[in-house]
Amino acid sequence: MVTENTTQSNPLAPPLDPDDWTAFRNEAHRLLDTCIDHLVDVRNRPWRPLSDADRAPLSLGDPTEGCGIEALVDELTCNVLPFSSGNTHPRFFGWVQGSGLASGLLSEMIVATMNSNCGGRDHGAVYVERAVIDWCRRCFGFPSQASGLLVSGTSQATVICLAAARLRALGTASRIDGIQHSRQLAAYAVDGVHNSTGKALELLGVGSSTLRRLPMGADGGIDVASLSRAIAEDRAAGLLPFCVVGTAGSVDLGYFDDLNALADLCAEENLWFHVDGAFGAWARLAQAPWCDLVQGIERADSLAFDFHKWMFVQYDCGVALIRDEKIHREAFAARPAYLAKQDQGLGGGEPWYCDYGTDLSRGFRALKVWSALRAYGSDALGRAITRNCEQAAQMAMLVETTPGLRLSSPVRLNVCCFSAAPREWEGSAQDSLNAKITSELQLSGDAVFSTTKLDGRTVIRAAITNHRTSEEDIIYAISAVARVRDREVGS
Amino acid sequence: MVTENTTQSNPLAPPLDPDDWTAFRNEAHRLLDTCIDHLVDVRNRPWRPLSDADRAPLSLGDPTEGCGIEALVDELTCNVLPFSSGNTHPRFFGWVQGSGLASGLLSEMIVATMNSNCGGRDHGAVYVERAVIDWCRRCFGFPSQASGLLVSGTSQATVICLAAARLRALGTASRIDGIQHSRQLAAYAVDGVHNSTGKALELLGVGSSTLRRLPMGADGGIDVASLSRAIAEDRAAGLLPFCVVGTAGSVDLGYFDDLNALADLCAEENLWFHVDGAFGAWARLAQAPWCDLVQGIERADSLAFDFHKWMFVQYDCGVALIRDEKIHREAFAARPAYLAKQDQGLGGGEPWYCDYGTDLSRGFRALKVWSALRAYGSDALGRAITRNCEQAAQMAMLVETTPGLRLSSPVRLNVCCFSAAPREWEGSAQDSLNAKITSELQLSGDAVFSTTKLDGRTVIRAAITNHRTSEEDIIYAISAVARVRDREVGS
Repeated sequence: MVTENTTQSNPLAPPLDPDDWTAFRNEAHRLLDTCIDHLVDVRNRPWRPLSDADRAPLSLGDPTEGCGIEALVDELTCNVLPFSSGNTHPRFFGWVQGSGLASGLLSEMIVATMNSNCGGRDHGAVYVERAVIDWCRRCFGFPSQASGLLVSGTSQATVICLAAARLRALGTASRIDGIQHSRQLAAYAVDGVHNSTGKALELLGVGSSTLRRLPMGADGGIDVASLSRAIAEDRAAGLLPFCVVGTAGSVDLGYFDDLNALADLCAEENLWFHVDGAFGAWARLAQAPWCDLVQGIERADSLAFDFHKWMFVQYDCGVALIRDEKIHREAFAARPAYLAKQDQGLGGGEPWYCDYGTDLSRGFRALKVWSALRAYGSDALGRAITRNCEQAAQMAMLVETTPGLRLSSPVRLNVCCFSAAPREWEGSAQDSLNAKITSELQLSGDAVFSTTKLDGRTVIRAAITNHRTSEEDIIYAISAVARVRDREVGS
Repeated sequence: MVTENTTQSNPLAPPLDPDDWTAFRNEAHRLLDTCIDHLVDVRNRPWRPLSDADRAPLSLGDPTEGCGIEALVDELTCNVLPFSSGNTHPRFFGWVQGSGLASGLLSEMIVATMNSNCGGRDHGAVYVERAVIDWCRRCFGFPSQASGLLVSGTSQATVICLAAARLRALGTASRIDGIQHSRQLAAYAVDGVHNSTGKALELLGVGSSTLRRLPMGADGGIDVASLSRAIAEDRAAGLLPFCVVGTAGSVDLGYFDDLNALADLCAEENLWFHVDGAFGAWARLAQAPWCDLVQGIERADSLAFDFHKWMFVQYDCGVALIRDEKIHREAFAARPAYLAKQDQGLGGGEPWYCDYGTDLSRGFRALKVWSALRAYGSDALGRAITRNCEQAAQMAMLVETTPGLRLSSPVRLNVCCFSAAPREWEGSAQDSLNAKITSELQLSGDAVFSTTKLDGRTVIRAAITNHRTSEEDIIYAISAVARVRDREVGS
């Protein structure tokens, strides 16, 4: 056979680009239709758990021989796509997950086609990232000379920002010499601070015990008087206070620190003011009263936040914004010979993003953000954020008016925590009931809540960062909770 | 107007999902055709520099109002796609960049549609990542209980692996307490080690001065006798040697450490053996003699490598593989209340990947790797790797037989460094000529080489990690170098 002989006579021809582009094109269009069908029908696609039989075809076994593009499209369609976690579904309120925009399907085709490496050099993707960073600067009131970097998420952004804070406290020589003979540092945050701050301090070698967790004041933010005292005590004990971490939207409750008060204190005490705004920073785009919660964010030395949560953009994409570009660069820049700057040619394009963070090779995360801002505009994104806040308030009202349910804490933003367990039950029985309701509704596909602990008790938690959620979805979800609750407890 | 009234009467309806899915579908298919046209024609799409006029539409200006999906597709087509860095082009040999597979266009549509967060939980994307990690384990001869994590690239993977090494050396309490009162650590690598190792040590607070850069032996790897002496001297000086970093494919030259010799020494000295195999690890899939270069890689305590370089998979995707899952988990696990394990429901799916690294939210990087392995198979990927090695040897031969060109160092793998400058010229004039040739060929679109410094001199460098490169491309590229050289120097 001619075909076989041809193959055999050229054994090294890599069959990695399609021989038959027409066939590839047909398969790609077939898959695209499948994806769009999925999005159109997303209301009927809640989380679908995998059985052992569902998992088996995901294993790669012995993949020495390929199955070809047509079989791949079949596998992606039948074996992969149906088993999402359902965070695209209108009644997904679990953890804090984004819902994914239709524009992302378009941008990711371009990203896959261009295959850009945004570590540096002079090409389009780098200018798209600059446009996104520049918009972030303007949105959050940072000065034009501030620097920024897209990363995988707020956890990475926190590492980048706190590394800059560490450098400012210990000097540039600490990069080379390490911190093993440095003074013991101290950082400060509210008790409900996200654990990514502790993990970042651990990674940086500073240790999570460096982080003082201060009691909440009446409004859920750091009690500023306690913070002042803690700083003074640490200074008196010979420690080196270096950073206050403000929280813009606590993960359990969506509470905010008084960012202006923290900025004032940091200015007085000469401390780095970092703000964790993973989802809550985007209250900036919401209507009043929610946008008022983030007042003062523009005074931060560094800010970490995500696009993949409350800007609804596809995973993954977070941002580190740093007010002082010089410190940012000093904390990370290191260009070896093979990356030397060129005046002309592809090696131009300074500054290179690799000089602002850990990653030398970097994907083209910026395009999904750029596409969302271009296609929808920030006003429409802001309206979706406002609507989620209204829905959290609606959910709180429904909880308060539904027999057997009770709110666990006031709703400030988009997070609503409540219990379906009778107050008079023993604690552990309350915990079990709330966990059971959450799990059962996940499995039935009615709604995805998650749980958290408040005052030692497991409660049901909704974090609404979902552009597809309607007011009817909120009513449906709370009714579903009440139904299971009534069955378990008796109405 | 009815439409306007409808909009006004429902001002909070988020216009983020298409009103008209048919129109969206048409636009998406139009864009897909554009992407496939681009790939079909990729040989005519080298790097295209941006003029000021090209950059202007990439700026976001004031994006409060969106332009809609149809305009977005036009902008992506006309303003973004043409300006790639051209690493998809067959004659792109600059730095070490991957060429991007057609299968990635398919997988990324699914990724964008599912919008999975792979930090944890019980859903399909997590099982796909497990399949990829499991295949990596088997490919590199790691034990079945080894753990792994997909990350943005080798730089991040190096941070993860060296954090585990640090934990082993200093104990689990060092996470909490920090390393500020620890003994001074010492790490060891060959002089040509990639700077990501130094940057990782800086991030970890250990400091880059911790890294001893040892002289190369005759074969380009660490001189093992020097390494032994350095360890003994550091121990005698009261330091705590903790890690040897083996290089599988040095960035400048593609050289290898003798990994078995390093593994033996690490076993004797009780040191963590990390291997940086960013691209070179994939010699594992090549034919002999290249696959022999990575012998001993299966003995590493940790291994960092990329899929986006020499496995041709789209950016970004790297891997951290760690032999001892317990140490890996101890270095990173930290699950707050709101992420508590559920026995049933979406909160199941242990182990969660967030417990193996920094990121809590994680994109679905695994699918592009899984799709490449399914569609093409590892044998075909290995053939493409072998072919790149043969092409580097071919390039070396051409350099040696082309008047005026000379090889700067023997070719071991896929990297070929050479000079086009007369030996008798002053050093800086040699540097300028090699830089000029590199830049001119980038600008003309003939071929993308980059430069590096060897023995203090700027040389031209080709790193061939490109499945589209043909033998004719190598001939064309070297001819282009010779043409510019002859014009500048006189033949």
